[in-house]
Amino acid sequence: MRSPEQQLIQEIFAPLAEAADGAFGLTDDAALITPVAGTEQVITKDALVAGVHFFADDAPESVARKCLRVNLSDLAAKGARPRYYLLAIALPLDLERSWLERFAAGLAVDQRSYGCTLIGGDTVSTDGPLMVSITALGEVPEGGMITRAGAKPGDGVFVTGTIGDAAAGLGVRARSAFEGLPPGDLEFLRDRYHLPQPRVSATDMLQNFATASIDVSDGLLGDLQLLCLASGVGAEIDLASIPFSPAATTLIAAESISEEDLITGGDDYEILFTADARNADDTEAMSGAANCDVTRIGTVVDEARGVRCIGRDGKPLSIVRASYSHLGGRGSDG
Amino acid sequence: MRSPEQQLIQEIFAPLAEAADGAFGLTDDAALITPVAGTEQVITKDALVAGVHFFADDAPESVARKCLRVNLSDLAAKGARPRYYLLAIALPLDLERSWLERFAAGLAVDQRSYGCTLIGGDTVSTDGPLMVSITALGEVPEGGMITRAGAKPGDGVFVTGTIGDAAAGLGVRARSAFEGLPPGDLEFLRDRYHLPQPRVSATDMLQNFATASIDVSDGLLGDLQLLCLASGVGAEIDLASIPFSPAATTLIAAESISEEDLITGGDDYEILFTADARNADDTEAMSGAANCDVTRIGTVVDEARGVRCIGRDGKPLSIVRASYSHLGGRGSDG
Repeated sequence: MRSPEQQLIQEIFAPLAEAADGAFGLTDDAALITPVAGTEQVITKDALVAGVHFFADDAPESVARKCLRVNLSDLAAKGARPRYYLLAIALPLDLERSWLERFAAGLAVDQRSYGCTLIGGDTVSTDGPLMVSITALGEVPEGGMITRAGAKPGDGVFVTGTIGDAAAGLGVRARSAFEGLPPGDLEFLRDRYHLPQPRVSATDMLQNFATASIDVSDGLLGDLQLLCLASGVGAEIDLASIPFSPAATTLIAAESISEEDLITGGDDYEILFTADARNADDTEAMSGAANCDVTRIGTVVDEARGVRCIGRDGKPLSIVRASYSHLGGRGSDG
Repeated sequence: MRSPEQQLIQEIFAPLAEAADGAFGLTDDAALITPVAGTEQVITKDALVAGVHFFADDAPESVARKCLRVNLSDLAAKGARPRYYLLAIALPLDLERSWLERFAAGLAVDQRSYGCTLIGGDTVSTDGPLMVSITALGEVPEGGMITRAGAKPGDGVFVTGTIGDAAAGLGVRARSAFEGLPPGDLEFLRDRYHLPQPRVSATDMLQNFATASIDVSDGLLGDLQLLCLASGVGAEIDLASIPFSPAATTLIAAESISEEDLITGGDDYEILFTADARNADDTEAMSGAANCDVTRIGTVVDEARGVRCIGRDGKPLSIVRASYSHLGGRGSDG
């Protein structure tokens, strides 16, 4: 005899675990990890709370995918390909079954896209907001995990994709601002906030080039500072070289948002990395290998020189809010 | 520059991660698991919510240890020795730093007792109740994970320790009942509820003897049903053979609690297992190897005969509430 909760798990979540033998159909106390020979396992765990990291009325599919993807982004920054994940979810007592079904449907889509499988977890109730905690496991070749700590003075500083779109997208969602922007651009920015695109395609490139790497989740400048802190280096980046999307560029031109907002805004889920690469050909090779744009934005310097962003007037920016807190709460990796 | 939350993690949680190289002092996006040669990794994830799985005014050290231990109990039931864990914690906005310091102190004590190390996690805020999600990793010899699915008709059914103490302890805490019980017994029962004793010492014994195994978290009868379901068998156990502690036996004699309450109550964190062992010598050998009492309580039978508990009158008990929900919420492993 199963309890109603076990029944729920069997009906809604067990189908997501079918592809992993070690998940035992979510009927056991624990799962067995079966590594591919010659690989090591990288593990990360991020928690997200309704009202802090997503809106309580966001589409359940989108909540599920965001929760999974922020973890896959952590793995990607380490050069790790996603393999397994575990899900703990605290459900408000009035949550409807259809919400959970849609949540699981969102996970199913992303499992296929990113090649990972649910292998375990826990379902509990709460009289507080919905909360999701995901633990994700990925694989790197032996010795191949890229940490935050390998940057050396002289290395280039690079980012994938474009920066600040999610912060602008949150502005679209929260303030209904930017009415002048074409609908397509508005949707692009909203999507960038709701649905991070973890740079899983960049893992091989990072394995080949990166000396240190971090995913940009709490703002480009703040995350650059964390990478430099771990590596014992400084960095100088140029505001003029930071890649902004056409939609964000339009907003900057209209003075609807500042460049400073974009480089301190969070939820980019791009990868910020350093590499011993000196010329444009290297950057082009990185873009090709990562299957996405890679842009050089600066240079690693000695620790004593600190972390600076040179503005368009040639002077270092002085930015107070160098770290980001999603919808206003506190939140940070550990 | 670190954010206040990163600072908190560095000051309070990073000392717990010192022993694991792959934790990178909690300064990276993810951790690296470094398995011992010839072992496989078993992983489990349990979430606990204030007001559901523990009381909001429980001592922080005790909350921490309970949260870790329920996960270690899952590992122990699989024959796995604890190795690593990750911690996600959602903090109410008004929580004081001293609470977190005491929470971390509780974890430090149990890390030493059980030989495991923090390697990662996440700290977020919530406007709901405090919630803790722990992912624990343990090691088994290759091919050595004990699932719920290996029980065969004719196997004996065994439990470690005593059953129902935590349910009685919850009664002590929640209802201030049982005034007639000696203070030492009251404290024993309260401790059994607050501080599970995961049977990590039994892992080698389980490796040698068990055909199937589950930890008793949601009530002996309910968990026996889950083991039988996974194994495709039935079971017949005898109420008279179920081990109760002296404190619980006193309560039964005083009719303060029923045997049925104890075998359907949760939070025992004993191990229920099956083994191809036919005589008392085998049971004694198991007790010796596990460094705790092991008691035979019944026999595995064909699936068609179902799961039954024979009462003291020789007739099967008819028990409606075969599964347990901690302080009243829903909650179940997946």
